[in-house]
Amino acid sequence: MNYIKIFSPATVANVSCGFDALGLALETVGDTMTFSKTDTKGVKITKITGADLPLDTQTNAAGVVAIAMLEKQPVDFGIDITIHKGYTPGSGLGSSAASAAGAAFGVNQLLGDIFSPLELTQFSMLGEEATCGTPIADNVSAAIYGGFTLVRSYEPLSIVKIPVPADLRVVAIHPQVEVKTKDAREVLPKEVPLKDAVTQWANVGGLISGLHTNDYQLISDSLIDIIVEPARKTLIPHFDLVKKEALKAGALGAGISGSGPTIFALCKDDATAEIVYKTIQNAYQDKQIDFNMILSKINTEGIKILEQH
Amino acid sequence: MNYIKIFSPATVANVSCGFDALGLALETVGDTMTFSKTDTKGVKITKITGADLPLDTQTNAAGVVAIAMLEKQPVDFGIDITIHKGYTPGSGLGSSAASAAGAAFGVNQLLGDIFSPLELTQFSMLGEEATCGTPIADNVSAAIYGGFTLVRSYEPLSIVKIPVPADLRVVAIHPQVEVKTKDAREVLPKEVPLKDAVTQWANVGGLISGLHTNDYQLISDSLIDIIVEPARKTLIPHFDLVKKEALKAGALGAGISGSGPTIFALCKDDATAEIVYKTIQNAYQDKQIDFNMILSKINTEGIKILEQH
Repeated sequence: MNYIKIFSPATVANVSCGFDALGLALETVGDTMTFSKTDTKGVKITKITGADLPLDTQTNAAGVVAIAMLEKQPVDFGIDITIHKGYTPGSGLGSSAASAAGAAFGVNQLLGDIFSPLELTQFSMLGEEATCGTPIADNVSAAIYGGFTLVRSYEPLSIVKIPVPADLRVVAIHPQVEVKTKDAREVLPKEVPLKDAVTQWANVGGLISGLHTNDYQLISDSLIDIIVEPARKTLIPHFDLVKKEALKAGALGAGISGSGPTIFALCKDDATAEIVYKTIQNAYQDKQIDFNMILSKINTEGIKILEQH
Repeated sequence: MNYIKIFSPATVANVSCGFDALGLALETVGDTMTFSKTDTKGVKITKITGADLPLDTQTNAAGVVAIAMLEKQPVDFGIDITIHKGYTPGSGLGSSAASAAGAAFGVNQLLGDIFSPLELTQFSMLGEEATCGTPIADNVSAAIYGGFTLVRSYEPLSIVKIPVPADLRVVAIHPQVEVKTKDAREVLPKEVPLKDAVTQWANVGGLISGLHTNDYQLISDSLIDIIVEPARKTLIPHFDLVKKEALKAGALGAGISGSGPTIFALCKDDATAEIVYKTIQNAYQDKQIDFNMILSKINTEGIKILEQH
């Protein structure tokens, strides 16, 4: 294979109760990336469209990942990468993760598919570390494995793929405000009351069980975050309004996507998702803040090959 | 129905990562209780064998529960209760819970089966409150529902029954030392680092997923408690030794049952459970502390009717 074109999905990390542990991948939002073998050794990012991001391979998540992979597995060819960002970086939908995971997947294909999904996740985490300061795995694992993923452990890295009810839909609103990852981290409590931690892990257990059994009521009941959301929602204009309207319109739950500012809602089917979409849209219309809306299935297969030769 | 004889199981609460949220019921250890209609209104505990416990219905967990039920549903008969404790109170295997849940179940049968399992759990929690000071639901829900149960929420009370791999076995050792519930509560941290809470809820998610998919490796990897066990194990003589020997002998995981002093180990089948049983027994033999050993299947149906007429 000399060329591959792929789609790497946007991802929602945390998913309410599962801070730093859960992620899910979107079907219709993500990056399109190409990877071409070249005669000149090394990695080059030759073009980025859709967003203003560095072509420099030392600072771009995709570049960092690709270089690390070629260091691990030296080859006699080079790789040119192009990236089309399908959504805005800084939205809280795992933008750097999509590029990092896409690079891990694409480069691995050109190398002859020699790395496991877990190894691809580990390479992708280097991209997260380079761009966000932390080698966090929740977004990249969701992009690579698809569906819901649980980062069960970091040492050793252990990713669990959780089944997804087929009709589950994600509605999301991205208010065009900047939430710096640094600020989003700084508002977090360093310590939490044990009883709150118990409440949170009981909900994580409920959510995981609900996903395994297609129990929408249980999923809905468990989509509660009493630890991170109360701290972070202050950074997101009209969060409470959006959440309230989404729930009133029938969403199973709503919360902050990653570190925000995107707010996501999970819905049990297309019809509900469309109502939730319009309700949120209406509620935000007069708020003097530009915003994008998303309605998506959940991507269950991870990164997709669009073309190869 | 004028008479019913039931078996109410012993239970392991917490199950490593799931402090105050998870419980499981044992097949072969528990209380045998009888409930007889009488002409004299009110509740009497006429006999307790197997342990030295109060017959007074205001202080005995079973009495407290039965009285609350008859207050809620007045009837023109009375109820006599007998209890045979099949194991030692104060062992950390839900002794008061077995009596409380057994009473809820038995009285409900004499009332014509008018309460749901959730309502029976709520009544049972009154027995826990009266005897332990806290209306905790993890043991009583496991006794009533059977199998693994998750107390997802207290307000409102929400119990989730989690499936159990058929071959799963419990080995437990009860060192005959007293661990006061008060002490076991006092050693707990009031606050925990957020990153430790994340580790813990990731393991809860992994354990629940592993139980749903019969994934013994995932169950084993997830049976980790970095919050409560390090604090409480100091109250249990030779805890580290027992855990180390259990794991070396092939147990999936081991931890403190409830607030101790019983130490439980989960094993993937009978053969492993027998090896783990003998290994723990040998390790404790020369420790100058009397102890009981248990090897049990997991009770998947909850409280059982032994006789009725």
